[in-house]
Amino acid sequence: MIVYFRVMRTRDDEKQAALFEATIKVVNAIGFAASSVSKIAKEAGVSPATLYVYYKNKEDLLVSTYIDIKQDMSRVLLAGFDPNGPLRDIFKQVWIQMFDYLSENSNYLEYAEQFSNSPYSQLIDKRDVEKYFEPLIRVLQKGIDQKIIKDVDFDILKAFIFYPVMMLANPKHCQDFEASPANIETAFGLAWDAIKL
Amino acid sequence: MIVYFRVMRTRDDEKQAALFEATIKVVNAIGFAASSVSKIAKEAGVSPATLYVYYKNKEDLLVSTYIDIKQDMSRVLLAGFDPNGPLRDIFKQVWIQMFDYLSENSNYLEYAEQFSNSPYSQLIDKRDVEKYFEPLIRVLQKGIDQKIIKDVDFDILKAFIFYPVMMLANPKHCQDFEASPANIETAFGLAWDAIKL
Repeated sequence: MIVYFRVMRTRDDEKQAALFEATIKVVNAIGFAASSVSKIAKEAGVSPATLYVYYKNKEDLLVSTYIDIKQDMSRVLLAGFDPNGPLRDIFKQVWIQMFDYLSENSNYLEYAEQFSNSPYSQLIDKRDVEKYFEPLIRVLQKGIDQKIIKDVDFDILKAFIFYPVMMLANPKHCQDFEASPANIETAFGLAWDAIKL
Repeated sequence: MIVYFRVMRTRDDEKQAALFEATIKVVNAIGFAASSVSKIAKEAGVSPATLYVYYKNKEDLLVSTYIDIKQDMSRVLLAGFDPNGPLRDIFKQVWIQMFDYLSENSNYLEYAEQFSNSPYSQLIDKRDVEKYFEPLIRVLQKGIDQKIIKDVDFDILKAFIFYPVMMLANPKHCQDFEASPANIETAFGLAWDAIKL
């Protein structure tokens, strides 16, 4: 029985992964309004009935996909995270991991940007997303307390740490940007100069 | 005859302005794929035949609307632009004017972001847009030559000057951000620290 369940779970995970990718593909191609449960199920190679095993409705599917992207991103960003290292090193590692993640998954970023601009974004409790990035927020607060980071509104700090990366890693915004290690390190230097005291 | 033409021209400008606003409204509501010439004409209160007086087709309408937004934005950003003033003051004025413009026209920003993420963005010659911002680019280059601004890739400088404003001015991204003059000035301070040598 244990083996049976394990096999079942693996197959389920595959279906859910297929639905995740299909949602992003369909929405990026035709937009939120035109995307339907049946089109997404078809793209994922499952029946609409199967989709409803995992998601209550279109709304739930779209919101869950957004939250899953944020969770996935936080897992990659915070890989090897050591809150006790030097602050600049911590941020540099997160920054570079974020750049790599966004470069390789520009379709996720595209979905997330469209989602933030859509009426569906009002269904999100911001704290549901922020909890994934809590280790980073705590380190930021430590930096402020130790007078290493500027004591300004958190939204301002986030705007300078995360937003420029999102632009530079997006080939549609910066098609001519050469993503060499030197250029990525230079860009991180500007982010650090922005937030450090 | 002159009076006749002048009156005609005014009425035409009104129709074109209505088409501009209708395009943004329809696309933001239902996405690029589902937006049609007939839906946009209806929203603008003109016939599709009238729309075709101004635009060749849907593609032309969508691309022109994007370029018009960029031109409109550049006009507001560069209002009172004095290339001979102190560099920090020049950028501060542009930054604050950009923040105000984006806060008041978040629907334009939403359209522009969606456009950049859409396949239509490939139809744009980047230089057609960049020419509107040329005075700013020239001042940036002057700052680099005078060793006031960091001599790094232009995309990196742009990512730190413009992108954080786009985030902070967008209520969908930063719903809790208090856009007080003090906070806006603080945010500009971070942008300046990022780009200055």
